Amino acid sequence: MPKGGYMQKILRVDLTTQKVSVESLPEKVARDFMGGAGFAIKYLFDEVPAGTDPLGAENKLIFASGPLSGTNASCASRMAMATKSPLTGAVGMSLSGGYFPVELKFAGYDVLIIEGKSEEPVYIWIHDDKVSLRSAKGLWGTATLDCQQIIKDNLNDQNIRIACIGPAGENLSKMACIINERRAFGRKGVGAVMGSKNLKAIAVRGRQKVPVASQDAFKKANAVMLKAMKDSEALYPALGKFGTPVVIEVLWGSGTFPAKNFSATGQWNPVEQLGVGANEVRKIGKEPCYKCPVGCAQIKLVKEGPYAGTLSVPDYETIYSFGGNLGVTDLDSIIYADRLCDGLGLDTISVGLTIGFAMELFEKGIITKEDTGGMELTFGNHEAAIQLVSQIAYRKGFGSILADGSKIAAEKIGKGSEKFAMHIKGLEMPGYDPRGLKTHGLSFATAYTGADHNRGYSSQDVFGSPVPEPVDRLDPKGKGRMAKWNQDMHAVTCDAATMCNFIIDAYFPEGAAKNTADMVNAVTGFDYTAQEVEMIGERINNLARVFNAREGFDRKDDTFPERILTEPLKAGASKDHYISKEELNLMLDEYYSERKWTAQGLPTKEILLTLGLDDAVTELERLASKS
Amino acid sequence: MPKGGYMQKILRVDLTTQKVSVESLPEKVARDFMGGAGFAIKYLFDEVPAGTDPLGAENKLIFASGPLSGTNASCASRMAMATKSPLTGAVGMSLSGGYFPVELKFAGYDVLIIEGKSEEPVYIWIHDDKVSLRSAKGLWGTATLDCQQIIKDNLNDQNIRIACIGPAGENLSKMACIINERRAFGRKGVGAVMGSKNLKAIAVRGRQKVPVASQDAFKKANAVMLKAMKDSEALYPALGKFGTPVVIEVLWGSGTFPAKNFSATGQWNPVEQLGVGANEVRKIGKEPCYKCPVGCAQIKLVKEGPYAGTLSVPDYETIYSFGGNLGVTDLDSIIYADRLCDGLGLDTISVGLTIGFAMELFEKGIITKEDTGGMELTFGNHEAAIQLVSQIAYRKGFGSILADGSKIAAEKIGKGSEKFAMHIKGLEMPGYDPRGLKTHGLSFATAYTGADHNRGYSSQDVFGSPVPEPVDRLDPKGKGRMAKWNQDMHAVTCDAATMCNFIIDAYFPEGAAKNTADMVNAVTGFDYTAQEVEMIGERINNLARVFNAREGFDRKDDTFPERILTEPLKAGASKDHYISKEELNLMLDEYYSERKWTAQGLPTKEILLTLGLDDAVTELERLASKS
Repeated sequence: MPKGGYMQKILRVDLTTQKVSVESLPEKVARDFMGGAGFAIKYLFDEVPAGTDPLGAENKLIFASGPLSGTNASCASRMAMATKSPLTGAVGMSLSGGYFPVELKFAGYDVLIIEGKSEEPVYIWIHDDKVSLRSAKGLWGTATLDCQQIIKDNLNDQNIRIACIGPAGENLSKMACIINERRAFGRKGVGAVMGSKNLKAIAVRGRQKVPVASQDAFKKANAVMLKAMKDSEALYPALGKFGTPVVIEVLWGSGTFPAKNFSATGQWNPVEQLGVGANEVRKIGKEPCYKCPVGCAQIKLVKEGPYAGTLSVPDYETIYSFGGNLGVTDLDSIIYADRLCDGLGLDTISVGLTIGFAMELFEKGIITKEDTGGMELTFGNHEAAIQLVSQIAYRKGFGSILADGSKIAAEKIGKGSEKFAMHIKGLEMPGYDPRGLKTHGLSFATAYTGADHNRGYSSQDVFGSPVPEPVDRLDPKGKGRMAKWNQDMHAVTCDAATMCNFIIDAYFPEGAAKNTADMVNAVTGFDYTAQEVEMIGERINNLARVFNAREGFDRKDDTFPERILTEPLKAGASKDHYISKEELNLMLDEYYSERKWTAQGLPTKEILLTLGLDDAVTELERLASKS
Repeated sequence: MPKGGYMQKILRVDLTTQKVSVESLPEKVARDFMGGAGFAIKYLFDEVPAGTDPLGAENKLIFASGPLSGTNASCASRMAMATKSPLTGAVGMSLSGGYFPVELKFAGYDVLIIEGKSEEPVYIWIHDDKVSLRSAKGLWGTATLDCQQIIKDNLNDQNIRIACIGPAGENLSKMACIINERRAFGRKGVGAVMGSKNLKAIAVRGRQKVPVASQDAFKKANAVMLKAMKDSEALYPALGKFGTPVVIEVLWGSGTFPAKNFSATGQWNPVEQLGVGANEVRKIGKEPCYKCPVGCAQIKLVKEGPYAGTLSVPDYETIYSFGGNLGVTDLDSIIYADRLCDGLGLDTISVGLTIGFAMELFEKGIITKEDTGGMELTFGNHEAAIQLVSQIAYRKGFGSILADGSKIAAEKIGKGSEKFAMHIKGLEMPGYDPRGLKTHGLSFATAYTGADHNRGYSSQDVFGSPVPEPVDRLDPKGKGRMAKWNQDMHAVTCDAATMCNFIIDAYFPEGAAKNTADMVNAVTGFDYTAQEVEMIGERINNLARVFNAREGFDRKDDTFPERILTEPLKAGASKDHYISKEELNLMLDEYYSERKWTAQGLPTKEILLTLGLDDAVTELERLASKS
């Protein structure tokens, strides 16, 4: 067994039978999947069979931390959670930072598997080895910050850490997320899965320490990582000082900051009102994750006007989704919307995009005031956007049409509206226009979660990073190899070792994989090579791909919204660019070939066996025999 | 020195010089003033001379706990604070429960005196014997719940307890209060005093124990108190089960539930929409004070409609001030207003009454839409009320006229509006119409803080309590003696021993004073008799009266708003009653006589010397020589 890093235990809670059990974490699972998303996808694949209703009792919620989490490692306090996504029908993988993730390790568990469905609202209270289900009848309907406070008060311990859903999750909005403090296990409707199980919250308090195999080796590795981070211009001063809003200016520079539901990217410039300057005026502090020296999460306070007194921590994505994307330049309204979404437990990207979709339909006359309940749903109308946020969470008024995201809204509305729904596989687009960021775009098209900026972020495209090599962001060629590298490195470093996404932007002389190996080896006592580390990332992506394949996903789903495929950008530094269907096919062919997948986008037996995914081979063969 | 109960220390923080010092609590002060309001008025009287500008550096904030606070005593976790009130110019005395009060004792202090004025926004961080001033620049502008969370996060201890102001206090609204958790040191603009000193918050964490002189005696006394509480119908089941909203039904029964700025008391019946039934539907839990077995603070959640998801803990007074008083029957809007006031740090009674005053002016045509910025400010318009709450906190729009309470608003508006301003000495009326509750009314007229239901609550009037003897609430005769008894018992039991107000409603076979003596003696080792205890209450009321006298207050200020003196109630169980000027004079004569005060309402040398208030005699003599 590994000598450190892991608590060696899996906690399983069956909400149907109310049975709580503890299993050992198998050494082979630890070695092959490392932790976090690796563990989560492993158990999701094994335990959630094809055809499972995402909102049925058979779906599971699998939370898993990594070996570094809870140690003194800088920027590794995150946790992954996986479930079958009700929004996409594919793998729903989310990661969150903060303090909840490490607390679960302090309580003694690497993995928490929640299954079944409670008859009545409950929450799970994990206090070291005492685990119980408690009634959440009184908590049902509470906003997430209130819910957390009430649980702390009721259990008489302010140091309890809690992940919970808000009204949106209770009402099964497929845009609901799971909130801990102000942070989210975001996107993909993971909050609705909790809601469907009548599970309001998970409360954790632990007093154990995470063992470290070699303190000397750990200190050395962590020092190297800290230095690399400090040397990285992206991290210091940019992200450390200004937080993620710096991305607005960077993207405006490359003509890829999406505006007005992607209809005005490169044309409509809100940098002055939404960029770093405007954010700095409202910044009052930071809210860093456990042991994080960067602190990209910046607390913003509205100081005047109708939203005065509102405080929240909107990141770049929210400023994009409720700002540029909606043609809104009122940053205060975005802070308000962010706070509202956190409280209701809603994903800001999906909600902002779904509202943007509706705004475009309204401006095009596809829907009218009769549909919106009298709302003048034009771009820029932040009052309407804010009103819709609540309507979405409670499925009221026009919000009932939008509550499950843009894809389902388009199905309900019809009239050709689907072409304005900016999603991939049902997941709304994050704030990067793929037409000028083709590595990133290819990653969106192929990521196992849908349009997800966190499953293979392309720093090469966005920041011009030369690691592992520079790219021409506008040239579709060569993108397959780079997208694969980004996805695999992201999967292992950020999702399995659960180091912060921004680590990827740091330059490591011996490579990021070597850094991850050094960190994880020091903590666990394993002897991963850099190559093995990369292979873990590849393993995760392949296993997730097979999970999706058995749900019916293949090449046809690796695509973009019609606008990306047909409308060239009209202005800015990426003017005239788009991704034609031919380009997409070229990129996919290259990508599948790099991955050793078939032309249909399915993993070959060869690559699966190389990765030791024998079970996945069996599943794929069963699939093939059926069709 | 006493053997228990006290930490024996006074902490003094000078914000001008940033000097922190510790003084011993003198034994004589402990014995003569017991604690809480006793200590607070003692130091206020000694240290804040006549003519002090309430919002100047010379005013002080004096926080003081009682001997029982922090022990296992049931319902004694409160703390008093005194300052010269910017709203009334008189003593501003407030008490709050929760957890902040006991934490200050755990840190080792009975009294905290804050003086001077900081140049920049600061907060005080008291961690046992380590006391420091820290910058609050970043916290300036934050809502109270956010402020508390950020301080806990920044100091990396979720168990810190905090009292702070919101934007209203920063903007020096004379209706601002000081919030700890969701509780308030309310009324009298005490939050503006903090704001004027650039003091955003006081954060406390302590690890000491409060010594108890005799555990055996204490357990015995506490058991008697618990039994008395359990035997009291008012406490169990009424207050324990339903919280303070039960008062609505009780007052409706006696025709004294104030409606529409006291213009429709007894006529307009909102019991169904605002009473116990409506509250029960929204109740999701309790938020009891430290060691409280009753838990009158009930958490309410709005479950549907435009305010859905809002959670707050409105007590009877808020349901009155934003409900009946505004002609509002939408309980959800009241919960929303309560939450908003807590966040902004505003006193719900004063704000509700000031808005009600404006609504009556609007309905009478004294002000119009031109004054209100277009608002249709009619009774029942809760949307307008909610809009005004924010405007008041930020002194924006029509809110800038209302921001300092009804008395000052009337001065600004003129046009005879003063007669609709429902205040005494500048403090807005709580939710008891004195026209049908004359003992209570006399207490309002004479209380040293203005119209304050907590400076001599009349359970005899309100609940028909036979302790110490039954009264005829409609007969002005005999009220002097009863008002004095209520005021003195309240001052010592609730304000000095800091036991909960509701203790007063319990029946003690040997009398409430004996119970207080038993409790305090057990904890401190003192040997108070019941008579001595009553005398401490009297001492507090007399010293406060002299404080006010040297600020110019006398008989002329012991009065009611014109409506109470001239308009008989039009319907209900107190129909045709009011308090004529003749009745008022009769009641005052009786009251002054009971108190051994002059016909001008000033304490005589005789009574002051009897009470050992020699310094007060000197002050009164100096005053007399001037006039």
